Amino acid sequence: MMTLTTFRSVPPFAAGYVRDLRVRWALEEAGLPYTLRLLAFEEAATPAFRKEQPFSQIPVLQDDGLTLFESGAILLHLGERCPALLPADAEARAQVTVWMFAALNSVEPYFAELVSLALFHADEAWAAAARPSAEAMALKRLRDLDDWLEGRDWLAGEFSVADILMCTVLRLLDGMELVERFDRLAAYRARCMARPAFDEALGDQLALYRQLPAVA
Amino acid sequence: MMTLTTFRSVPPFAAGYVRDLRVRWALEEAGLPYTLRLLAFEEAATPAFRKEQPFSQIPVLQDDGLTLFESGAILLHLGERCPALLPADAEARAQVTVWMFAALNSVEPYFAELVSLALFHADEAWAAAARPSAEAMALKRLRDLDDWLEGRDWLAGEFSVADILMCTVLRLLDGMELVERFDRLAAYRARCMARPAFDEALGDQLALYRQLPAVA
Repeated sequence: MMTLTTFRSVPPFAAGYVRDLRVRWALEEAGLPYTLRLLAFEEAATPAFRKEQPFSQIPVLQDDGLTLFESGAILLHLGERCPALLPADAEARAQVTVWMFAALNSVEPYFAELVSLALFHADEAWAAAARPSAEAMALKRLRDLDDWLEGRDWLAGEFSVADILMCTVLRLLDGMELVERFDRLAAYRARCMARPAFDEALGDQLALYRQLPAVA
Repeated sequence: MMTLTTFRSVPPFAAGYVRDLRVRWALEEAGLPYTLRLLAFEEAATPAFRKEQPFSQIPVLQDDGLTLFESGAILLHLGERCPALLPADAEARAQVTVWMFAALNSVEPYFAELVSLALFHADEAWAAAARPSAEAMALKRLRDLDDWLEGRDWLAGEFSVADILMCTVLRLLDGMELVERFDRLAAYRARCMARPAFDEALGDQLALYRQLPAVA
């Protein structure tokens, strides 16, 4: 059985947004069972864990002797095991990989910048001045995505791992009232989140962080 | 023959750093011939091009009826055609994909932030105040990479598309004297750039931007 590594506990604002959600969701879509390995924050910085994950990050997935990190690489690996996540046809598969990289390299960095300003630099005077240009970049990407979704239910053909990545990227903006300005995009996000596998994965992550004390 | 789309001209600071370099380099490593399709900046914003590339970005690669964007997805596609870029063995291949996503999602955004502050916000007062925390994050990633390279010539086994991506990500910091603080990492970057295929690709990009006027 596969083993998914995530943090044992997280600050309250992160519950429901920890990146293992992407992997949990894909595993639920694929119907693949898994066990959890829970890591304290301080363990992530140890030399032993950094041999596995050099950036002290989660998630890590262990599958039959293979140890993988980076949620994008993990989802590509799972997609290759499960055609419902990533089509086997070469052309359809290539389009899904395009949108996996787009979510993680052309979209997420701009949204992560807004989160960083709001969560990690809120007390610094420069952060308020930095926000307008960061928001403008994020809005440009949102508009691009909204245009792309015209006539499409999913980013590339049928539902795929690309949608799992993009939906979790869009959720970084929760509470900022930005996605809500784009009707197609808001409907797309809702369509993703209406999937039973998303609900199961989110519920499992929230249950973990509710049942344990907030400090590791 | 494959067709690579890039910009017809770029501002002087961008010559040698345009993202088609990743694709040119991979194509040179693979020994695959290609032709160029040159795009004016204003063409990138047209509805016709945005149907191909929704973010108005380059590179785009056309290969036998398939149109791909995102340099990561293009390099994955080329790797699947050429084992010298991406090993066919499942475990070795998975490790390379881990480092492709690491370069583009766990490393590049932090370096791009420093570039953005230096190039696009240099005249804004908040940018100087934002720099220390951005530099601290970049240095953390550089240290993580330097540690990972202990006893390794390349990121994952033999040279691969992951190294092409990581080297071009490291080059974002050219002139900032940051990579130079880490001996293993500086040697790794030099090892990547010493490859004949890199030299060929860089020379071709520079030749294009030298021969044409600076404004499209």
